[in-house]
Amino acid sequence: MGVVTPPKTPKQDRSRATRLRLLEAAVACLAEHGWAGSTVSVVAERAGVSRGAAQHHFPTREDLFTAAVEYVAEERSAALRTLPVQGRAEVVAALVDLYTGPLFRAALQLWVAASNEEQLRPRVTELEARVGRETHRIAVGLLGADEEKPGVRETVQGLLDMARGLGLANLLTDDAARRRRVVTQWAALLDGVLD
Amino acid sequence: MGVVTPPKTPKQDRSRATRLRLLEAAVACLAEHGWAGSTVSVVAERAGVSRGAAQHHFPTREDLFTAAVEYVAEERSAALRTLPVQGRAEVVAALVDLYTGPLFRAALQLWVAASNEEQLRPRVTELEARVGRETHRIAVGLLGADEEKPGVRETVQGLLDMARGLGLANLLTDDAARRRRVVTQWAALLDGVLD
Repeated sequence: MGVVTPPKTPKQDRSRATRLRLLEAAVACLAEHGWAGSTVSVVAERAGVSRGAAQHHFPTREDLFTAAVEYVAEERSAALRTLPVQGRAEVVAALVDLYTGPLFRAALQLWVAASNEEQLRPRVTELEARVGRETHRIAVGLLGADEEKPGVRETVQGLLDMARGLGLANLLTDDAARRRRVVTQWAALLDGVLD
Repeated sequence: MGVVTPPKTPKQDRSRATRLRLLEAAVACLAEHGWAGSTVSVVAERAGVSRGAAQHHFPTREDLFTAAVEYVAEERSAALRTLPVQGRAEVVAALVDLYTGPLFRAALQLWVAASNEEQLRPRVTELEARVGRETHRIAVGLLGADEEKPGVRETVQGLLDMARGLGLANLLTDDAARRRRVVTQWAALLDGVLD
């Protein structure tokens, strides 16, 4: 007989559910109130969890918020990987969408806080690099880009930089109409390089 | 005889010099310490000016920091307008440079703070729109772009979005080497659209 994974106990299930509630509350809190307004207590209350339970899962504030951004980034990556293959314009639009929702807002708050706080900086730098590499890999796959061809790697990188910039442009105002036109044009430019 | 402009009094000169010192100190302070760490008192001390004198020039914290970002943005725009006309790659590099220095860091801190603070939001939104329009106008001129041609306007907009995203990628780490390669590639892509 093979190795049998023991079924999860109800206690483990509850612990996992608590952890997820905390992670989701942390991202929403960061996106809405910024780093200065995001403490473990505020997140615990929002998640309906005691402060003690929150600290059991995440000993420090830095642990909680970096784990939260990483978790949501992984969720988004997983969703993107299962995107049905469509035209290039749709793929570009889906990549750009990564940078216009609450996850990007939360990540942006964390990056900007990390630029001023030595304590946060190394962890966020490392997280950003990991998420960035993963997003690049997914983009290459979805776009059907052959990185052996000269210029293709830099073209995909530039596209993701543009997506990040479009996210920033959407921070204070709804930039969707302009963004659609820019995405359409740049998707056409990509075709010239990638095909 | 024509209208004679009265010479400035030493008092007016001193007042103007104080104002400039405050604006420059405010941008440096925002870039280094973020919105939470940037108060009128901190800036006044950095500029070597009394708190009372600072408040005479800028009655509120919002006045001081939005004026500071606007002032430095105007300085940068003026410098860009006098850039000797060079190849397109140099122009793209100069545009991207707008988003990698202390001004971008300061503006980013202000944008992100504005996304969480209702008091700051309308002023920063208006400032961002004004600076964005001016940067677009300068970019069109420097690139020799003919916006009557279909797709050209969106191409220039996307380029500035990419520049903003490259600025964000440079926030926590020195991204200069990768940035140079991306800029070279996208400058070549631009040639195909603009010529």
